[in-house]
Amino acid sequence: MDPTPTPVVLLSGHALGAFEKRLHEEGWRTVGPGEVAMADLAQVRALAHASILPLRQADLEAMPNLGLIHCMGAGYETVDVPWCRARGIEVTNAGDANAELVADYALGMLISAWRNIVVGDRMVREGRWTQVAPREARGPGLKGRRLGIVGFGHIGVACAKRAEPFGLEICWWGPRPKPEARWPRTESLLELATWSDILLVACRANAENRGLISREIIEAVGPEGMILNIARGSVVDEDALILALKDGRLGRAALDVFWEEPSPAARWADVPNTLLTPHAAGLASDASTMIYDRAVENLRLFFAGRAVATPVPSGA
Amino acid sequence: MDPTPTPVVLLSGHALGAFEKRLHEEGWRTVGPGEVAMADLAQVRALAHASILPLRQADLEAMPNLGLIHCMGAGYETVDVPWCRARGIEVTNAGDANAELVADYALGMLISAWRNIVVGDRMVREGRWTQVAPREARGPGLKGRRLGIVGFGHIGVACAKRAEPFGLEICWWGPRPKPEARWPRTESLLELATWSDILLVACRANAENRGLISREIIEAVGPEGMILNIARGSVVDEDALILALKDGRLGRAALDVFWEEPSPAARWADVPNTLLTPHAAGLASDASTMIYDRAVENLRLFFAGRAVATPVPSGA
Repeated sequence: MDPTPTPVVLLSGHALGAFEKRLHEEGWRTVGPGEVAMADLAQVRALAHASILPLRQADLEAMPNLGLIHCMGAGYETVDVPWCRARGIEVTNAGDANAELVADYALGMLISAWRNIVVGDRMVREGRWTQVAPREARGPGLKGRRLGIVGFGHIGVACAKRAEPFGLEICWWGPRPKPEARWPRTESLLELATWSDILLVACRANAENRGLISREIIEAVGPEGMILNIARGSVVDEDALILALKDGRLGRAALDVFWEEPSPAARWADVPNTLLTPHAAGLASDASTMIYDRAVENLRLFFAGRAVATPVPSGA
Repeated sequence: MDPTPTPVVLLSGHALGAFEKRLHEEGWRTVGPGEVAMADLAQVRALAHASILPLRQADLEAMPNLGLIHCMGAGYETVDVPWCRARGIEVTNAGDANAELVADYALGMLISAWRNIVVGDRMVREGRWTQVAPREARGPGLKGRRLGIVGFGHIGVACAKRAEPFGLEICWWGPRPKPEARWPRTESLLELATWSDILLVACRANAENRGLISREIIEAVGPEGMILNIARGSVVDEDALILALKDGRLGRAALDVFWEEPSPAARWADVPNTLLTPHAAGLASDASTMIYDRAVENLRLFFAGRAVATPVPSGA
């Protein structure tokens, strides 16, 4: 091997054309995300991970020179961080770089689902707008409603800042108190869910919080309430959510993330009062440049032998 | 006639059940909005106007005791105000009471149309979410984009306040400078449209501004831009807008109001990049109580022989 070889970055996931171009401009070589020859794998020094599929240990072991896995979004639940670090592989993520993108989308979902905007669009297109002020297109108002945010990291805080001028009351819950937070924390998730008209799930997903939004939490949000999930599908008990929507124990749901992705259309065909989006909150046709910037920053630092910018935390 | 007869309020428009109940609680009698006998018309002292159809002079002349027309929303373009006032009929509207409701909805439309949230929902339901990160579901980011607001009354200002934490730059234009405004005014509408990524139409409709958003203005917003109309259909040259969307001279449109309402579905079937809602921005299933409060306030004052709270301005 050349003593100073061209850095090689393996790309996982789809639709990274513009990002690939950025990497080439840096003078790096890219491989993947399609078929990758074993010879290439030996040269891979970094992995830009844009997939929601777990990285398998056997695949990582086939890359003896791999030193960095950079997760393009905020989530890194697809990477076994302790296992990687024990093998000298650093793991980074987007940090706060996609928080604004996700929070913008979350507020769009919140307003559209609560005020029946998507229902209204469907009515007009299907020729069902036949009288002035159609009742089906009216949702409740937002002012004075209670927004409970589960998880108060970059994304949760960015959602709170955007929600404030709509006159929403805001509380949050997360496992650790944050004395610097501008909004109050409830003592428990159940307390937050009981208090909330709208429960916004914005926490990190990990092994501990699978099904955190359980049947009990869903019922605490209740028949007039809404659950909005822009975190990860695993955090919500999706079967319980569907049953609660069907028999009216939960009012509405707005979901960008699902147990299985892509989520099959048939699963939702007879579930009322839903807004369903294809895990797109962190994606944009242009502004994902913030995410690309962060990836390039970490790759540059890593290839220069310096400390990376946004290593993911150790532990859960 | 009884010297102190029970006040009678005529209701125009639809779906006012909850409001009618409020009026009965005040001890007033209501008639309409269905067939009204001539005997009833003679007793009508006030008209609560919730329709977007113009009030005809002949109908008003059939109510010799009519002294107040209260428009339930912000708009009053369906009432000939000078003609009414010359006959001793006062005209009031909701004032700022529905501004927040409309601005909430406008922001929901803005984010959903710009970030392709409604497109995403359609993809999931139609089984077209078949790969991770679908390109069709991605719109551009909002941060740093330019939001131009046409008309900076209660609704325009309420939209600006909500848009600010999304990192949007904000300018506005209206015929009169407002030294107290927190955001800058452009010298002309064309300047605003040229500057804007998103042009939000939030002005009052009147005879002077029919077609204000002309072909020239639409083209100044341009192929990457979006026009969002929550004012009145008459303000936008709808034929020019449709042509511009079809041949890509305008990027997107989000419309809650139309030339003809209900707008026929067929008119929009082959028009790309639209979000279409059924004139619902000012409607809610509950919070329209703010609007009801304002109506009751004006009716009470009028029946007590006192000055009303929110008379509409004289002149255009």
